[in-house]
Amino acid sequence: MANRKVFERLDVSVPGYRYPIIIGYHLLGDSDALSQYVAAEQVMIVTNELVASLYLHELKTSLSGHQCDVVILPDGETYKNQASLNLIYDALMTNSHHRDTTVIALGGGVIGDITGFAAATYQRGVRFINCPTTLLAQTDASIGGKTAINHACGKNMIGSFYQPAAVLIDLNTLLTLPGREFNAGLAEVIKYGLLAGEEFLVYLEEALKHGLRVNGSEILQIVSRSAQIKARYIEADEKEQGSRALLNLGHTFAHALETYTSYQRWLHGEAVAIGLYCAALLSYHMGIAKQSLVERVACIMTRAGLPYTIPKDIDLKQLRQFMQLDKKIKNKRLRFVVLKKPGECYLDDGVTEECLHNTLSAAVEGENSNG
Amino acid sequence: MANRKVFERLDVSVPGYRYPIIIGYHLLGDSDALSQYVAAEQVMIVTNELVASLYLHELKTSLSGHQCDVVILPDGETYKNQASLNLIYDALMTNSHHRDTTVIALGGGVIGDITGFAAATYQRGVRFINCPTTLLAQTDASIGGKTAINHACGKNMIGSFYQPAAVLIDLNTLLTLPGREFNAGLAEVIKYGLLAGEEFLVYLEEALKHGLRVNGSEILQIVSRSAQIKARYIEADEKEQGSRALLNLGHTFAHALETYTSYQRWLHGEAVAIGLYCAALLSYHMGIAKQSLVERVACIMTRAGLPYTIPKDIDLKQLRQFMQLDKKIKNKRLRFVVLKKPGECYLDDGVTEECLHNTLSAAVEGENSNG
Repeated sequence: MANRKVFERLDVSVPGYRYPIIIGYHLLGDSDALSQYVAAEQVMIVTNELVASLYLHELKTSLSGHQCDVVILPDGETYKNQASLNLIYDALMTNSHHRDTTVIALGGGVIGDITGFAAATYQRGVRFINCPTTLLAQTDASIGGKTAINHACGKNMIGSFYQPAAVLIDLNTLLTLPGREFNAGLAEVIKYGLLAGEEFLVYLEEALKHGLRVNGSEILQIVSRSAQIKARYIEADEKEQGSRALLNLGHTFAHALETYTSYQRWLHGEAVAIGLYCAALLSYHMGIAKQSLVERVACIMTRAGLPYTIPKDIDLKQLRQFMQLDKKIKNKRLRFVVLKKPGECYLDDGVTEECLHNTLSAAVEGENSNG
Repeated sequence: MANRKVFERLDVSVPGYRYPIIIGYHLLGDSDALSQYVAAEQVMIVTNELVASLYLHELKTSLSGHQCDVVILPDGETYKNQASLNLIYDALMTNSHHRDTTVIALGGGVIGDITGFAAATYQRGVRFINCPTTLLAQTDASIGGKTAINHACGKNMIGSFYQPAAVLIDLNTLLTLPGREFNAGLAEVIKYGLLAGEEFLVYLEEALKHGLRVNGSEILQIVSRSAQIKARYIEADEKEQGSRALLNLGHTFAHALETYTSYQRWLHGEAVAIGLYCAALLSYHMGIAKQSLVERVACIMTRAGLPYTIPKDIDLKQLRQFMQLDKKIKNKRLRFVVLKKPGECYLDDGVTEECLHNTLSAAVEGENSNG
C-alpha cells in the first residue's frame, strides 16, 4: 500500500460550483496535490490531539512554503461545540488570516464538521479543504457540504451547507484507525450498497466474506464507489429538499439509539448498523420487502463485525419517544426511509404505530432467528 | 405619507434563487403582504428594545394566525455578538422551532445582520424575512445577503452570505428615526450616486439642496433607486469575488476610522461620509480624478448634514495601521476603490504609501479649502 501511486478523482457539481474528491495514497505528503487547492500564502490546519500526533508533521511539511498555523482540539464529539469553534476563530484572527486564507480539516467527522463551519463563517466564508482520516468521514461526513456544531439541546443544530474546495482522502490514514472505528465506517458503506443496488452490495458481501483488510486492494474501490454514490445524491439535491433525505436510511432509528444512550454506547456507525437492520425489518413488517432481505442485512453486519440487534435493556417505549426529535419530521409526522430491495428506497410518512412497535420488538436481541 | 398606498417591488436574482424587495408604506401592518413570505406555522421575530416599543405590536398583530415567538435584544452595535446570537438559538430551540420556521428581523443593520446569521445557521438554514427600520438598513445593510456578528478582534468577522426570502421596507418607520441616523443613512445613498453616475447624483444634490424631508415625496424614489443600484452589484457578483467590492467605496477609510475610535465616535454612515471624501481625495492625488470632484463630495456631505474631514486629534499613522485589517486585502496588499468620476470606479492595489499619506494629510480638518 505504502508505495502505490494509484488514485481516483471524482468531481462533484452543485449549482454554481464544482470541486474534486481525490482518493489515493500518501496525499497528505504530496505537496503538489495539496498546493493546487490552497488559495494563497496563509493556511490554518485544524486537527485533534490524536490525529496531530500521527499526521500533522507530514501535512505541515507538505505545506512548508506557506504561513501554516495550527489549532489542535481535544478528541471527541463532546468538543464539537461553540467553545472549539471560537478557538478556531481566535486563531484565525490573532494570526491575521485574511479572506484568501485556506482552512484545512485533518481528522474524522467531528473535525471536518466544525472546521467546515468555521471556514463557512470566518469573514463570510474562506477556502476549505477537507482531509478526512476515518473511514466514516472518508465515505460519508466529508462529502456533501454539511457542516455543524452541536447545541446543548441537540446534535448538529447550528451549521450550514458549505462545499469544500477539495476533499483529499489519504487511504494511508486507515492503517492507524482502530478496528472498531473501521468497522463502524463500514456501516455507512453498507448503507450505500443498500441504496445503490445489487452490484455494489454483492461486491461488498464478497469482500467482507473473504476478509476485508485495511491495506487490501478493495479499499480504494470501496471508498471511491461510496463517495460516488453519495455525490450523486448531493448533486441531485444539495440542500436536502427531497431525494437527499434517502441517505438517512436507518438513521431515524440510529439517531434515537444514540440520543437514548447519550452518544456513549455506540459509535455512530454502530448505531447506523442497528438502524439499517431496523429499516429492513420495518420494510418487511410493512409488507414491501422480503424476509430474505432482513436476513441478508443481518448477515452482512455480522461479516463486518457490527452489531445489528437492539440490546434487551433498551426500553422500546422510550426509544420510540426519542424518534420524535428527527429532523425529517414534516407537518409533525415521522418520515422513514423504507427499502423494497437493494436499489429501491423511498420516504414513507404513513408508518403506523403498530407496525413500528412490531419492528422494534422484532429487532431486539434474541427475538429473531439471526440474532 | 400615512395613507399612501404606493409601493415599489424589485426582484433580486442570484444563482439558483430569486427574491423580492418591497418598498412602501404600512407594510408592517399589512398581514397579506407579510403572510405570503412566511413558510409555515412558526415565526420568530428578532428586534431590539427601542424598535419593539415602536413597531412590535403592529408586526405581531399582522402575524396573529401564527405561533409567534419574540427575542428582544438590547439596542446597539455592542450587542452584535455571540451572546446575542446564542439568545436567538436558545429561543428557537426551547420553542421547538422546526426547519420550516420563518425568522423575521425587525430593526436596523445590527438586528438584520445578527438575525440573518441566526437564520443562516439554525438547522443549516431556515427562512428569513428582513424588515429594516433605518435608512441605512433600508438602502444598504438589508440588501445583498451579508449577515454577520462581530468578533472581539474585528467587526463582521463571523458571518455568511445568506439571501432572505423577502425584504419588506416600511418607509413609515423613518418617521421615528432620529435626524442624525437619517443623515448617516444618506452617506450610503450618496455612495450609490457616486457609483451609479450623474443622473442619480444630480437628483440627490437637488433634493438635498431643497431640503430632503423624511416624509417628502423623494424618499420612495431615493430608497428604491438605492436598493436597485445595490441589487445590480449583488446580482453580478453575489459572493464579492470581483465587482461587488466596488460597493466598498470609501469603506477602507471608514472602517479604519471606526476601529480607531472603537465605534464610539461616529455612526457608520458618518464614517462612510468621511471615507467617501478620502476616496475622492485619494483619486485626485493619484491623478485620476479632478479637484472639482473632491469639492463636489465635500459640498454634498455638507448639504446632507454629514462630516467629511478627519478631525485633527486623529493620529494618521495609527489610522494607517488600522487600514491593514481591511477584508479586501489580497496577497497582503491593500486594495482601494478609486473614483475617476461619478459612474466610473475601480479597484486599485497599487496605491503608494506616499500617496496614501498625502491623502490622509489633506483630509484633515482645516487642511483643505472646503474644510
